[in-house]
Amino acid sequence: MAKPKKEPRPKAETPKGFRDYFGAEVTTRAAMLNAIAGVYHRYGFDALESSAVETVEALGKFLPDVDRPNEGVFAWQDEDEKWLALRYDLTAPLARVYAQHRNDLPTPYRRYAMGPVWRNEKPGPGRFRQFYQCDADTVGTASMAADAEICAMLADALEEVGIPRGDYVVRVNNRKVLNGVLEATGVTEPDQQAAVLRTIDKFDKVGESGVRELLGKGRLDASGAYIDGVGLNEDQAAPVLAFLTSKGGSTAETLANLRVAVGASEMGVQGVNELEEIASLLAAQGYGPDRIVIDPSVVRGLGYYTGPVFEAELTFEILDEKGRPRQFGSVAGGGRYDDLVARFTGQQVPAVGVSIGVDRLLAALHAKGKISGAERGPVVVTVMDRDRMADYQAMVGELRQAGIRAEVYLGNPKHFGNQMKYADRRGSPVAIIAGGDEFAKGVVQIKDLILGAQIAENATVEEWKERPSQYEVPRAGLVDKVRDILAEQS
Amino acid sequence: MAKPKKEPRPKAETPKGFRDYFGAEVTTRAAMLNAIAGVYHRYGFDALESSAVETVEALGKFLPDVDRPNEGVFAWQDEDEKWLALRYDLTAPLARVYAQHRNDLPTPYRRYAMGPVWRNEKPGPGRFRQFYQCDADTVGTASMAADAEICAMLADALEEVGIPRGDYVVRVNNRKVLNGVLEATGVTEPDQQAAVLRTIDKFDKVGESGVRELLGKGRLDASGAYIDGVGLNEDQAAPVLAFLTSKGGSTAETLANLRVAVGASEMGVQGVNELEEIASLLAAQGYGPDRIVIDPSVVRGLGYYTGPVFEAELTFEILDEKGRPRQFGSVAGGGRYDDLVARFTGQQVPAVGVSIGVDRLLAALHAKGKISGAERGPVVVTVMDRDRMADYQAMVGELRQAGIRAEVYLGNPKHFGNQMKYADRRGSPVAIIAGGDEFAKGVVQIKDLILGAQIAENATVEEWKERPSQYEVPRAGLVDKVRDILAEQS
Repeated sequence: MAKPKKEPRPKAETPKGFRDYFGAEVTTRAAMLNAIAGVYHRYGFDALESSAVETVEALGKFLPDVDRPNEGVFAWQDEDEKWLALRYDLTAPLARVYAQHRNDLPTPYRRYAMGPVWRNEKPGPGRFRQFYQCDADTVGTASMAADAEICAMLADALEEVGIPRGDYVVRVNNRKVLNGVLEATGVTEPDQQAAVLRTIDKFDKVGESGVRELLGKGRLDASGAYIDGVGLNEDQAAPVLAFLTSKGGSTAETLANLRVAVGASEMGVQGVNELEEIASLLAAQGYGPDRIVIDPSVVRGLGYYTGPVFEAELTFEILDEKGRPRQFGSVAGGGRYDDLVARFTGQQVPAVGVSIGVDRLLAALHAKGKISGAERGPVVVTVMDRDRMADYQAMVGELRQAGIRAEVYLGNPKHFGNQMKYADRRGSPVAIIAGGDEFAKGVVQIKDLILGAQIAENATVEEWKERPSQYEVPRAGLVDKVRDILAEQS
Repeated sequence: MAKPKKEPRPKAETPKGFRDYFGAEVTTRAAMLNAIAGVYHRYGFDALESSAVETVEALGKFLPDVDRPNEGVFAWQDEDEKWLALRYDLTAPLARVYAQHRNDLPTPYRRYAMGPVWRNEKPGPGRFRQFYQCDADTVGTASMAADAEICAMLADALEEVGIPRGDYVVRVNNRKVLNGVLEATGVTEPDQQAAVLRTIDKFDKVGESGVRELLGKGRLDASGAYIDGVGLNEDQAAPVLAFLTSKGGSTAETLANLRVAVGASEMGVQGVNELEEIASLLAAQGYGPDRIVIDPSVVRGLGYYTGPVFEAELTFEILDEKGRPRQFGSVAGGGRYDDLVARFTGQQVPAVGVSIGVDRLLAALHAKGKISGAERGPVVVTVMDRDRMADYQAMVGELRQAGIRAEVYLGNPKHFGNQMKYADRRGSPVAIIAGGDEFAKGVVQIKDLILGAQIAENATVEEWKERPSQYEVPRAGLVDKVRDILAEQS
């Protein structure tokens, strides 16, 4: 056998745009998703974990360029020349699953899905090519009760993970109302309709006066560039502006304003009726406009969805990178879409769903102090005497039996300082110390590392003497004393 | 713009070898992994979720054929021509992560990881190209306390998920003892050593007499074919047979037998000492040979690992496909391996780990009746009157507030029979029925679907009259009555 060529050492790095998640990053996300899953389950939604790999054919319509199927997704050819790809969201797989299993699934089918998706896009700061999505959808019913249910469930989910009532609002709008408004403008030329839609999308940024200018002659933007307008006259623009600003002091008032905005449009009236039905169904369950509100200024997603559209915003303030207070903003969105399954089966199947931005919501919980970046480390039993390893193992065994996270130091025990440095790096709350003297006396030393660190940083000599952070207790009292210290720390 | 060609409809199917997981399949696995994670966490292990995508370079040495990097793994070329691949286990990523982050990680580094891995292999019945792994490893210590700890943790994890003590045993062997035995045989020629190792691997199948024949002149196998032997004489074969059969009535006896088998081999003696140390550390924590036992007949993985090797076996019986009772068998395995990180850094880093076969353990829990394939469905509030939807929503709202899984029927309510069929398909325990009469009287009908099904199947007319499965209760008593029925059912 020829001697194999010596290969250079591979680089130890994640591919560009990918990252690893450590410790609390994993467990806090899992806990949050678990809490959300509990709410979804209570609403009768079933878990679905679809294959991470799909045929490009099944994802097809979501791909921008069919000649280069790995544009936007990570794709490769199977041994039988079929193109496979990593799912890039959880909606396209739902469409495939529903079409494939529709005879075995209940109708309507309520399902939730949580897991990573992959995007073959240019990574940037905070933009990764693998990230989590968390979706819930109801497939197979056109009933507005399904839309109302998803809004209620979203509100419940936010409260369940720790966003208090008053710190969030779910805003509801309707694409059909917008269509009615378009009819009311009298604009029928598709390109001009599209231009109106694009302008509405800018409402978040440029506000009412900006939209008025952009619908008309045009607008000088902040950079000094002149943006051409759509060219509507004031009468044509009026319904659009009425729509965007129709939110009133009560749901009844908002709905009345919307009825004015859509005028005689049949689709528009239908859209307003749908919003009214959603509001009334929600009111019956006690969800008032303090939690879920009809708000026609929500324009995000209006182009994508076909009926009701919703968005959950967190209304508390955080400081932006320049230290200025601003609202936290959107953490979830969804709506009704009716062309989910048709490309597989030819049949239109109505569906409505919501997607929670997992990383956004985690960031919000961090901002609210609901979760911390570091979890409490284990109690560390230090090794003073290598030959006593069985005794140290017995100690951690007892601690774990009592449900206390604990470990023996398993590095080189020669330098005690390294053991304390290790405990520090682990975020350990307590260290146990027992050498020959302690074993002879039948005791252990228990060091409160949190208190110790506080004292080292702040205390006067007197305090230091009064508040010892190290205790000698009988060996049999080890677990009780550790439990006491942990209880005091938390 | 040219009219786009009409494409044929895509097939709604998972790629070959992939599958979807529904409902209880997802939640029971998640619950099991969550319970295991709790045990691992208590032992001081930190969660790690590495990127699902790695550079082929980082996975490189695990690939059988470097000229065809997508052999065995799913691989593709990135836009900058780099080959990327889906991880095919959780060990190769651990090596990359540890090499990449070693300056920020504690030493030793205890980590657990749970998640899907992907194999580009020929799928078969029950063999999928995406499946879960569940690993725990300690990197950076040669101490046998790490090995003992992992064995104890594995035993705890099995009990935590529902395998009772007595129904499992963790068997421990040591590659170093085997190396010592090889020395004792006097076989030095590498090909002949390899032949001895291959023969030992067959011990599970052919037993002591089979191995004796195969080490010597050869053996007529069950199919009538003659298998050539390794050609050792009886003196040479004796240490191997002594090794494989050295399990005694007590740990002390087993260790004494092993000392005889390894003779003067220094490495063999070291291996026996390691096993002795593990047994003594475990005894100190109360893990006797009823749970973790030194057992030199464990040969699986001996070729791969460099020190202690362990395997968890479930000892209860199940019926095989022909209805014959057999032991459930192995659900986890692991051992010590020391070349994890060296290919990245050039430094040998000692490590020890264990991997639980997620699907195997789930199958075992099913076999023991610890989990069932179906979960209890939601209470279904039926729709007798479309205009009362708000009232029905209020009912499910109250039930959910009380923590009861509940939903309104959102399909077409026209045929009541379809609603009951839906409830049946959902596995619903209870249906709520309220039409005009009920609303007028201020009551609801509550149907116990489980009892109803039992009565329909088994009861006499008398029983049927005595045990009504449908109750009329005041509207205000809805939640209490449902709770009572659910409590009786469980």
